[in-house]
Amino acid sequence: MVFASIVLPTPRTYAVLGTGALGGFYGARLQQAGSEVHFLLRHDYEFVRQHGLIVESPDGNFNLPQVNAYGDSQQMPACDVVIVALKTTQNHLLPQLLPPVLKPEGVVLVLQNGLGIEAEVANIVGSDRVMGGLCFLCSNKVAPGHIRHLDYKQITLGDYGIGTGGAGYAPQGVTDRMQQIASDFEQAGIPIDCSDDLFIARWKKLVWNIPFNGLSVVLNATTHQMMADEQTRSLAKQLMEEVVAAAAACVQAIDPGSSRAVPPSFIQTMLDYTAKMTPYRTSMKIDYDDRRPLEIEAILGNPLRMAKQAGVELPRIAMLYQQLKFLDTRNRL
Amino acid sequence: MVFASIVLPTPRTYAVLGTGALGGFYGARLQQAGSEVHFLLRHDYEFVRQHGLIVESPDGNFNLPQVNAYGDSQQMPACDVVIVALKTTQNHLLPQLLPPVLKPEGVVLVLQNGLGIEAEVANIVGSDRVMGGLCFLCSNKVAPGHIRHLDYKQITLGDYGIGTGGAGYAPQGVTDRMQQIASDFEQAGIPIDCSDDLFIARWKKLVWNIPFNGLSVVLNATTHQMMADEQTRSLAKQLMEEVVAAAAACVQAIDPGSSRAVPPSFIQTMLDYTAKMTPYRTSMKIDYDDRRPLEIEAILGNPLRMAKQAGVELPRIAMLYQQLKFLDTRNRL
Repeated sequence: MVFASIVLPTPRTYAVLGTGALGGFYGARLQQAGSEVHFLLRHDYEFVRQHGLIVESPDGNFNLPQVNAYGDSQQMPACDVVIVALKTTQNHLLPQLLPPVLKPEGVVLVLQNGLGIEAEVANIVGSDRVMGGLCFLCSNKVAPGHIRHLDYKQITLGDYGIGTGGAGYAPQGVTDRMQQIASDFEQAGIPIDCSDDLFIARWKKLVWNIPFNGLSVVLNATTHQMMADEQTRSLAKQLMEEVVAAAAACVQAIDPGSSRAVPPSFIQTMLDYTAKMTPYRTSMKIDYDDRRPLEIEAILGNPLRMAKQAGVELPRIAMLYQQLKFLDTRNRL
Repeated sequence: MVFASIVLPTPRTYAVLGTGALGGFYGARLQQAGSEVHFLLRHDYEFVRQHGLIVESPDGNFNLPQVNAYGDSQQMPACDVVIVALKTTQNHLLPQLLPPVLKPEGVVLVLQNGLGIEAEVANIVGSDRVMGGLCFLCSNKVAPGHIRHLDYKQITLGDYGIGTGGAGYAPQGVTDRMQQIASDFEQAGIPIDCSDDLFIARWKKLVWNIPFNGLSVVLNATTHQMMADEQTRSLAKQLMEEVVAAAAACVQAIDPGSSRAVPPSFIQTMLDYTAKMTPYRTSMKIDYDDRRPLEIEAILGNPLRMAKQAGVELPRIAMLYQQLKFLDTRNRL
């Protein structure tokens, strides 16, 4: 709890690991608003080094003709905030990527989908230097260095930390550094919700991500089609109920007797929200259609394993996991 | 038990309701072997009336230039044995189709997939006039009146009947009429296995049909692909375990204290058998690819409802059902 209240310097420098639809969007907005940002790229490195970034957005289009682009994290300066915006399928690279870009008093901000990533990052940089963020963002990379932001953009921030029992994801409250980062993002026009419980925030996002990311791939369907059909609407609800039950069991495993929970009413809220959304191809479906690896382990595998350790079987989520693993393997043969 | 031992006359006349890949094959073989057979057809009626039936088969190709073809069951003579070989998705027609073609002492032989159809037929013609058969047949209709038999052909026969408690599917033993029909089929070169327990025989077939018919559609996969992948092989096994558990509960519901069961070892037998099969597109996948209605209710819906009444939830089979219903609806929009 002490460590989590570390105060960052002003102004803060940012590193963005993974300059795609998400990292490119937020990083470009931070730079546009005046922050110093350093971007790590892979395929697009040469292009972005020469031409910078282009962002199309309902908030207004803009170009950044000049950005700090890197093809190797060893070349990057150590920063105050390191945003992890890779696909989780690239997280095996983090032990090499993170240490050179993180200042001793800096913090890693994990802006990825799924569960358990902060714990992996804590193993690399220490649990006092990790935060998580849940992005509600609809954005695509349409060409090298060219990002098309479609809808939403807000982020829920939460600090990671080790509780008295030694388990991660103990509620940290709204820390000073969280407020500092929030102010940078808000300066850049990104609404921030500061959560005092990252663990519950991540499970809440899974309530949506597990059914709709998973089923969109297995059934080749949009959220609109799934909500319009009685059978898949009912299946989505049952999958959500498994997520809520898993969250409850996993909270008790790390924080016995706690009242922390995803409220059951959240399920109906998410169903109503999804029914009203503009028809939407989920991020996992986009990855599948582009024959990229799917984020199955972060979004389904880690929650399944954590729930199993807490003594809970999730038969529907397990079946969705098995179906997705089969499809993902075949998709990239 | 008394009724089930009704003896049929010799020789026996046959009606085939549904002259497709299955009904056309068995009916043609019976006629070729000397039985009098009357065929009900829908789309192919005019063609078959004029040109008869063609059967290609590894057993030898043959033509029947002249068959008794009907477009309307009201025109058919009452027969000793009425073979129901429609897709189960057409079973709403049975109350109209069956009565005119069945002799008072005749028997309806249900050669369809799934569970619970004999009970529906018993409601129409009386429980003393129903038998079931499980076909292990790989056959396609490739053109009007043109059947291509690929592999397998044996049938497991079982008599339906009401037990002392009033519930259906009480074991009837090997009845006289079962042996009479078996001898006609064997005369036609079709191996027959006479089962003394139709209920268990039907559940055993579901052990294979539920996972492989269902997943082949949802995952767009052959049996070979599903068996080669660790995830789907494991999922198929878990689905089979749910079928075996459901069978046990449903037997106890209709026959308390009984030792009738699908032996758990049957699961591994079916997995080994499937791994060695020649790669095979399941009947449900063929229906799906041809945009015909899927036999979801007979194969998954009826077992689910029967298990639920017996107090057992089958989460994986229920999820497969929901996925298939969604896909089937969309497939025929």
